[in-house]
Amino acid sequence: VQAWLIHDGSASAPLSGENTALAAQDLSEQVLIDLIGDWLGPRPTLVLISGKTKAQVRPVPAVPNELHPVRFSVADARVRAYGLPGLAQSSPPDLMHSDATRIAGFLSLNQGWDGVICQPGVYTSWAQISAGEIVSFQTFLSGEMARLLAPTLSLPDITTQTDWATPAYSRALEDALARPERLATALNALRIGAPVQNVSKHDTQARLWGALVGAELAAARPYWLGQQLAVIGPADISNPYCEALKHQGVPVTVADADRMTLAGLALARRLIT
Amino acid sequence: VQAWLIHDGSASAPLSGENTALAAQDLSEQVLIDLIGDWLGPRPTLVLISGKTKAQVRPVPAVPNELHPVRFSVADARVRAYGLPGLAQSSPPDLMHSDATRIAGFLSLNQGWDGVICQPGVYTSWAQISAGEIVSFQTFLSGEMARLLAPTLSLPDITTQTDWATPAYSRALEDALARPERLATALNALRIGAPVQNVSKHDTQARLWGALVGAELAAARPYWLGQQLAVIGPADISNPYCEALKHQGVPVTVADADRMTLAGLALARRLIT
Repeated sequence: VQAWLIHDGSASAPLSGENTALAAQDLSEQVLIDLIGDWLGPRPTLVLISGKTKAQVRPVPAVPNELHPVRFSVADARVRAYGLPGLAQSSPPDLMHSDATRIAGFLSLNQGWDGVICQPGVYTSWAQISAGEIVSFQTFLSGEMARLLAPTLSLPDITTQTDWATPAYSRALEDALARPERLATALNALRIGAPVQNVSKHDTQARLWGALVGAELAAARPYWLGQQLAVIGPADISNPYCEALKHQGVPVTVADADRMTLAGLALARRLIT
Repeated sequence: VQAWLIHDGSASAPLSGENTALAAQDLSEQVLIDLIGDWLGPRPTLVLISGKTKAQVRPVPAVPNELHPVRFSVADARVRAYGLPGLAQSSPPDLMHSDATRIAGFLSLNQGWDGVICQPGVYTSWAQISAGEIVSFQTFLSGEMARLLAPTLSLPDITTQTDWATPAYSRALEDALARPERLATALNALRIGAPVQNVSKHDTQARLWGALVGAELAAARPYWLGQQLAVIGPADISNPYCEALKHQGVPVTVADADRMTLAGLALARRLIT
């Protein structure tokens, strides 16, 4: 959980609560008050919450500046809380929460932008934007799979790799793009390869992400082939995606995740009457 | 770890040590003595060990009755220990240990049998047998992935499902066979679908295995299409594979895993001079 104190339109440095970077979690009132208690005064403070909340999700297609925040009842009188609604899709079944806030923020800063917004993370989402609408989206569990498989492959939980322009990464990526159905045997080759062929942890990690991102790109092809693309996300997980897209000759606009969240919150603020 | 006391060619009921069903593990001498200590007398007892041991792996192609057990030095004088060698393949890199023992056992009971032996488990192996030789094999991490993904999908660790002839399983299987590259988004649909569309745990589990086995069958197609097939493995993990192969019109011979292990150990016994 992250929180910003916004005053006269400018945001403080973010305050970070318990590490939920790798697990979507409902935000309880107590967690909220513990986090931002120091910012609260005698008069009610407006609190906007993006993420998985009680706010009902809205169906796609959706227009970001019609996603009005929903008032929550909160026992603490110092807080006037609103939740930003997430988006739901029935076929294929999908949900997005804070990703929708960042898309709204990106579009408020890039009026008239058409294309696809990719948000790498534990769950990586690809959203198609057309004429100011979020038309459809699709989410992949690749980041979660990388995290779950790390112990099996004797890797640390989260990658700290910064350079993905390596032969190990691009070869695994190309193999997976060409034969994406072979994911479960490519992963087995990594399990075997590390001890038997003395593959370094660095290369094993590069090949793990190459296999996962390659399979994802194979399945998400309609979302990036010939599309205008923006990538929003934390650098550690965005980097392999950006490198893979570059490798496919797809030009990518990279946008800062926090900045897009703040722009999305600012848009939501304007929607509260 | 499992152990049998074999006397005059007939085996006792198996003795089970610590549960290593889901993790390949090196067997230490202490674990061995703890497990079979009661069976040891003053004169050395012959102990045959199948699984991941210090015995060097042999390259494929390999003839099972040329896989001579390797003598281990053991401090305890009551034990005369031999390890059964595993098999290694350089391209694609792969290893098998106890699976090789069961193949040797199966072939000793089915002389002249040609075809493919599939051994579902944490790591599922597919081995091509021709003219008494283990020609090549390929291993998939599907079972491990099911285990790792269980908490993400709020499922119990190991499936207890016995009936796989359900619409939920066959639909997920067909989807995965047709679009195996979509695994990471099919898994996301399960994460979303269970809470949002009120999918039962039973159906979520069926769809998880349908997605994983379907993707595996798509990648392992040369191993089962038009092949004579035998499936050896624990029933809980073999059942979804057998149902999937039946669904594809592939006739399958099912062989009991313990019985194949014992036949493989009996063959190894005959190879010790």
